[in-house]
Amino acid sequence: MTRNPFLPGAPRPDVVEGLFSQEEVLLANRNSGTLLETLDQDITPTGTHYLLNHFDVPLISADAHFLSFAGAFDAPFDLSMEQIRALPAVTRPVTLECAGNGRAGISPRCFSMPWIYEGVGTSEWIGTPLAPLLERARPRRGVQDFAFIGADYGFDRGHGHYFGRSLTPAQIVELEVLLVWGMNGQPLLPQHGAPLRIIVPGWYGMASVKWLTRIEALHERYQGFQQVQTYRYRRHTEDPGLPITRLRVKSLMKPPGGPDWVTRQRWLRAGPVRLQGKAWAGAGIPISKVEVRIGKVWREAELTGRRDRYAWTSWQLDWTAEPGVYDLACRAQDAEGQIQPLEAPFDMAGFANNSVQQVRVHVAEKDT
Amino acid sequence: MTRNPFLPGAPRPDVVEGLFSQEEVLLANRNSGTLLETLDQDITPTGTHYLLNHFDVPLISADAHFLSFAGAFDAPFDLSMEQIRALPAVTRPVTLECAGNGRAGISPRCFSMPWIYEGVGTSEWIGTPLAPLLERARPRRGVQDFAFIGADYGFDRGHGHYFGRSLTPAQIVELEVLLVWGMNGQPLLPQHGAPLRIIVPGWYGMASVKWLTRIEALHERYQGFQQVQTYRYRRHTEDPGLPITRLRVKSLMKPPGGPDWVTRQRWLRAGPVRLQGKAWAGAGIPISKVEVRIGKVWREAELTGRRDRYAWTSWQLDWTAEPGVYDLACRAQDAEGQIQPLEAPFDMAGFANNSVQQVRVHVAEKDT
Repeated sequence: MTRNPFLPGAPRPDVVEGLFSQEEVLLANRNSGTLLETLDQDITPTGTHYLLNHFDVPLISADAHFLSFAGAFDAPFDLSMEQIRALPAVTRPVTLECAGNGRAGISPRCFSMPWIYEGVGTSEWIGTPLAPLLERARPRRGVQDFAFIGADYGFDRGHGHYFGRSLTPAQIVELEVLLVWGMNGQPLLPQHGAPLRIIVPGWYGMASVKWLTRIEALHERYQGFQQVQTYRYRRHTEDPGLPITRLRVKSLMKPPGGPDWVTRQRWLRAGPVRLQGKAWAGAGIPISKVEVRIGKVWREAELTGRRDRYAWTSWQLDWTAEPGVYDLACRAQDAEGQIQPLEAPFDMAGFANNSVQQVRVHVAEKDT
Repeated sequence: MTRNPFLPGAPRPDVVEGLFSQEEVLLANRNSGTLLETLDQDITPTGTHYLLNHFDVPLISADAHFLSFAGAFDAPFDLSMEQIRALPAVTRPVTLECAGNGRAGISPRCFSMPWIYEGVGTSEWIGTPLAPLLERARPRRGVQDFAFIGADYGFDRGHGHYFGRSLTPAQIVELEVLLVWGMNGQPLLPQHGAPLRIIVPGWYGMASVKWLTRIEALHERYQGFQQVQTYRYRRHTEDPGLPITRLRVKSLMKPPGGPDWVTRQRWLRAGPVRLQGKAWAGAGIPISKVEVRIGKVWREAELTGRRDRYAWTSWQLDWTAEPGVYDLACRAQDAEGQIQPLEAPFDMAGFANNSVQQVRVHVAEKDT
């Protein structure tokens, strides 16, 4: 085997506790968060849904794009975008969250995209169920995994690869995985995977491969870099870890009042305020409770429903704000009894921090 | 006058040289940069154009939105969006850049959005020339300024205000200011000012007020917070400063090769590479030269034109890359002889850093 001239890749700067390097800020400039003020909307407005792209966004012409079925299929085929868009279409609101969301709050912190709260959003995805299409290509007996390969190429620690992930045949059925070409009534935007991606409802976003070029049926488990080297829960360097799969229970609040432009702390006058936001959990599990902490007291919010089993749940709580300074927080619990922790759970790579959001609010006298 | 209960606003964290606070990262999560890999496109793809919003993005129904002409007009009127969209329409590609673009590279640094390179983009704006509309409202003799007030409200150092800016009658004509309702063939997206904004070609982005509700004719110069308290070039705390207006000459390169995912350094194999990017200057001034530094040598790039006098200019240079590590840079000069500096110019608030971009590129042997 030839020596890989790209190893070991670029050196990663040291992480400083409580502060961030210019390289981390560069990632935050490039990747973008959902705007918290849109958390009163069921569907995240187009162009504000969070983005986390490992490599460069490829700009692909839909006219020249084909999806190839390859590997252990008995009847593999290629499909043009025209053929794909002619398949039976469904529109489904699905909440996606980046596995690294909340990383900036984990201590010690891993060097990567420094998400705080905003790496989550809900779109109406337009596509077709993937399982029947896979059946049509007749996977051979003993197929264990389907690999999904994107058109986005880059390097991680010197390893060049197309972004790829896999799912087992059972997961594809159970999670109702979609092959997707549209978003919020329009064709997919380039940065969201145009012209074709998958959506894996209820799992963290890394599974929903963008710019999909190829689906490969495998007799063994897929060993792609993004499947086995990253996206694992690890406690220490030697820990083989466990794969990251479904979303942890979590909630966010639309910050009330008006923002201070740079600190994003909130300012309002005493009186009635409706607090509202969203809560979600993994793979279709319903939210059973959302509580809001005002001062030291947790109060139960009203759950006002969700648009789909894979979409976040809306909640609200009416508060009569008295003058003072508050660190508001919200905390969700799911139907399996999982509840958000107050402190960030540690993970080596800063994955899946579902600890509670805090919003500092300054309430002024009503009549000054 | 009543005491302002919101003063002095939230305390701003100290700035640490070479590192960034969580509050700065929060701004970088929320505001978003144009993707550098799209710099081979004349028009920045929809939803990836940079965003810098001071306050919360208001979600406004176009059906209920009116633009009011107020103040020193003899024939003021209100216009519905339906009436506005019936006005003579033009489509115009205009390059916008955030006045704070490059702030992260200025030392010492001001606490605000830590832009590195990505606060710039070009869209095809759809709207109508503003000057004839203002004439229709018959500004009174002696009007000095027109104030443009948005629907976005928030606080800066404890001062609550709607975002507002002004332009003189002469500037509105000279800069061919547009009243805009569309972008890249579609209605404006909420985060870009839907349903109505202005575009001030050739000036930094703060002038292009979003979510426009009101145009006020004034017999004196407008004294709004965003006009007189911020967006001024200042050298020290006591410096009254000079207003920030037109774009400084600048250029950016599409980073060649493939990215290392976290450091964004670039990796490619030896051989021919086309380097390409964009260059722009203020208020319609053409670009006269772009040079690219490879190793220690500056080479002149070919200018391949621009779509409009207010849009950026494309450039390219073919390079036969030899193995090694390079810090590539590009530098533009405009028709007035202004040239980009190698070092960031100092400004108290980190405005208008037009120093050269650097891109680290690792070139491996061709055949390994």
